[in-house]
Amino acid sequence: MNDNDYQEYYNKYLNIIDKRLNEYIKVIPPRKLYEPFKYIMSTGGKRIRPVLTMICAGAVGDAPMEALDSGVAIEILHNFTLVHDDIMDDSPFRRNKETIHKKWDEPTAILTGDVMIGYAYDLLPGSDENKNSDKILKTFSRGLIEVCEGQVYDMEFNNKKEISLDDYLLMITKKTARILETSAMIGGYCGNGSDKQIECLRAYANALGLAFQIQDDLLDITADEKELGKTVGLDIVQGKKTILIIKALEKAVEDNDIRLLNKFLDENGLSADKVLLMKEMFGRLGIFEEIQDIIDSYLLEAKKHAESLPAGLHKEMLFWLLRKLNNRKH
Amino acid sequence: MNDNDYQEYYNKYLNIIDKRLNEYIKVIPPRKLYEPFKYIMSTGGKRIRPVLTMICAGAVGDAPMEALDSGVAIEILHNFTLVHDDIMDDSPFRRNKETIHKKWDEPTAILTGDVMIGYAYDLLPGSDENKNSDKILKTFSRGLIEVCEGQVYDMEFNNKKEISLDDYLLMITKKTARILETSAMIGGYCGNGSDKQIECLRAYANALGLAFQIQDDLLDITADEKELGKTVGLDIVQGKKTILIIKALEKAVEDNDIRLLNKFLDENGLSADKVLLMKEMFGRLGIFEEIQDIIDSYLLEAKKHAESLPAGLHKEMLFWLLRKLNNRKH
Repeated sequence: MNDNDYQEYYNKYLNIIDKRLNEYIKVIPPRKLYEPFKYIMSTGGKRIRPVLTMICAGAVGDAPMEALDSGVAIEILHNFTLVHDDIMDDSPFRRNKETIHKKWDEPTAILTGDVMIGYAYDLLPGSDENKNSDKILKTFSRGLIEVCEGQVYDMEFNNKKEISLDDYLLMITKKTARILETSAMIGGYCGNGSDKQIECLRAYANALGLAFQIQDDLLDITADEKELGKTVGLDIVQGKKTILIIKALEKAVEDNDIRLLNKFLDENGLSADKVLLMKEMFGRLGIFEEIQDIIDSYLLEAKKHAESLPAGLHKEMLFWLLRKLNNRKH
Repeated sequence: MNDNDYQEYYNKYLNIIDKRLNEYIKVIPPRKLYEPFKYIMSTGGKRIRPVLTMICAGAVGDAPMEALDSGVAIEILHNFTLVHDDIMDDSPFRRNKETIHKKWDEPTAILTGDVMIGYAYDLLPGSDENKNSDKILKTFSRGLIEVCEGQVYDMEFNNKKEISLDDYLLMITKKTARILETSAMIGGYCGNGSDKQIECLRAYANALGLAFQIQDDLLDITADEKELGKTVGLDIVQGKKTILIIKALEKAVEDNDIRLLNKFLDENGLSADKVLLMKEMFGRLGIFEEIQDIIDSYLLEAKKHAESLPAGLHKEMLFWLLRKLNNRKH
């Protein structure tokens, strides 16, 4: 098998997930609640979380379909966080479509997010369907709790004057990595994996999540604008404190650089014409290489954790996901 | 035993619930999430939902303590709805204390509500703790879903030009009665009640909830201001379409009455000096008696449903709750 075959499996799982989502979410009365629910779940996305759930169930138990509904539950949970985050950030668009609080209104967006949680839980297996149902439920609730904590850390992080790499890592752990860990662990439970296997899956997903988020920060400025699908350097314009900023604050010694960084911090971002200046500075300070090294080390860590899993298609897919991530351009 | 004894039992359960809540909710980092969570759960309230859960577990299985954690989960769920409803209604106060979105800010209130759902689910029994754990989980999710639907119906109801008694009953069923049904059913499951007993408990709680909500509408204008603890006629000033308004629209024939009601509808409420005029009209049209009859019939219905339960303290407490409701002044 080659990487195209793995991609085909990914697409196959993605289609099954979309079909299940479409069948599960019905536009019933009150339509003002279920239309936005259907709408947000139809805006697409990579469905990485539910696919990961299915792959992990496959990796330990050769039964990816056992994890379909739990994966769909996690995808709904993830989308609930997007609906509420978009209110808090007042974002007008998500995946090139209007956000719910803009297309409808804020109360509708709050309630749609809320009801989504109920529908997500309702998809988790009962004790008659899976002997690990209690663990799946606990893991799911933990995921919900920590993703809320992550959003608070994210907001606090952006308002902080002094920012450390540790604060950054805690924030992205809770906000991005934890729900991937939830996906992987629940997949492992659905596949009846051993405790040791589930710990491997969790650690794999944690490292994958951290690599993914850090790469997001990097691509914002190093990507090709056409491939990225949005303006390059948006994080700089919006004043987002990425790992690039943290590293630059650590390494900058020249007055000009320090002045530029302080301007970024004091004014919560820079005008678009300053993006190239920042990019030049990041390059000169060797930050791109350093961050690529961090990403590589997380990808290597993820790989190591997956190595102890039983050989087979789904283990290979876990390795392939790391290669795919490493090669992504957007 | 007399009614004072039942009240003592109620207070005993209430104290156990408050103690469990206080021990369960810890102010850990990020404090910006857990301080408001602790805050809203400490503002008191009658705790009718978790007490009902315990009473129902007692009524079918003589084991009220088995339902403690599930009752606490429902109380957290109920308070989550208050936190989010207060954002949507932009209410500044709740139980005489500032609401979370006012005391902190709106993102904090959204996230606090969200995280509360995770903590609520985490209290439900696992399959090793209760053989009905699957049913408890399903009933809980259904409660969450319907309470969101109820809030949508409530908002739509207030924006509707034409309002019917059926619309009103659907709205209060979803918004008020359903979470009481959830409390009663989960109590019944915790106490290992039979399907028939659980259906009795559900029907009891449904009728209790409807009676309670309709009485709320009535007390807003008939209560003594001191006993009510808030301005009499607030619903009229705020333009709330209560069952009194629906009945008045049905019965009014005089031009003056119709003009007053249309003014209320067109201007979304009346100035405080018009409250007495409305009260006089309600009285003249015989609406107070008619509504008291509706309340009485729901209370009677609730009583009938409870009658088939096994004799004992907790069955008596279900009857006493109806008497207590009937005598309430606020």
